[in-house]
Amino acid sequence: MSDTISELAANIRSIPDYPKPGIIFRDITTLLGNPRAFRRAVDELVQPYAGLKIDKIAGTEARGFILGGAVAHQLSAGFVPIRKKGKLPRDTVRVAYSLEYGVDEMEMHLDAVQPGEKVILVDDLIATGGTAVAATQLLRQMGAEVVSACFVIDLPDLGGRKKLEELGVDVRTLVEFAGH
Amino acid sequence: MSDTISELAANIRSIPDYPKPGIIFRDITTLLGNPRAFRRAVDELVQPYAGLKIDKIAGTEARGFILGGAVAHQLSAGFVPIRKKGKLPRDTVRVAYSLEYGVDEMEMHLDAVQPGEKVILVDDLIATGGTAVAATQLLRQMGAEVVSACFVIDLPDLGGRKKLEELGVDVRTLVEFAGH
Repeated sequence: MSDTISELAANIRSIPDYPKPGIIFRDITTLLGNPRAFRRAVDELVQPYAGLKIDKIAGTEARGFILGGAVAHQLSAGFVPIRKKGKLPRDTVRVAYSLEYGVDEMEMHLDAVQPGEKVILVDDLIATGGTAVAATQLLRQMGAEVVSACFVIDLPDLGGRKKLEELGVDVRTLVEFAGH
Repeated sequence: MSDTISELAANIRSIPDYPKPGIIFRDITTLLGNPRAFRRAVDELVQPYAGLKIDKIAGTEARGFILGGAVAHQLSAGFVPIRKKGKLPRDTVRVAYSLEYGVDEMEMHLDAVQPGEKVILVDDLIATGGTAVAATQLLRQMGAEVVSACFVIDLPDLGGRKKLEELGVDVRTLVEFAGH
């Protein structure tokens, strides 16, 4: 593990038995709140895409907005919010998805992406991949090309990365944690 | 109005009678989705703070996370999420606040800011100021100094800017719209 990745990992707080017994919650707020770790996380996420022409960054509500906004600005791309249902004011496309702890729906404005646009999906963490797979479906349904998906944290034992890769999405992650 | 500000204003979509009759909703998703407008908005928000030593950017869930993340990265500051209740995994400080269309509670991790830290509050829009005033209270309660608050959109007729200024907060906004 490089020094940068070790530093990022050290800034993620692990909370045992949250939100329920047996789960270790990986809390990224401590990383976000550390100026140097936050800067490095964004720079590491952006680095593989330097020089590519990316039209839009898509981020899922709510934590995906924080890193997604910073990545969009760094890549001079637009930002597309994918939100919980009922939050967007205009016509949307909607998809149901399974969360690690339940089921929900998310939606995106119909005009948020144009056919052929190159989009990168950004979120803080990939676990079961429910959110990321659903977001990929929404983007592809509107004709966008999902060039890549990137996450600070990967929980590989939960299989989300594999699911996304099976859909043909290039996946990049910075820090892996075993278990849930 | 400068060319940049005109361009930002032109990229904000106005939706009449949303979320209820008589309200014109100012939809920032069209600005966020436009790479050039998004970049300019972030750069304009950041510009007054260049050279200041800012410890943290605080953003309120959820739209404040998008611009807040980008501003934090640009200023090499940490990012503090101020969230709807029940979303943060560790001990929090909580405050009730009035929304334009209802009442809610927001909270922040107890350890999100340290006494004396210099914080800038970032959000997309200031209307009645309910959210921004509550966020300011949370930050001050934990001993942070709220150096400034900045917003892309100001609805001055709703009085939020004035309320924040009466609390001694320096307020910066980019685009004003009359009425609701």
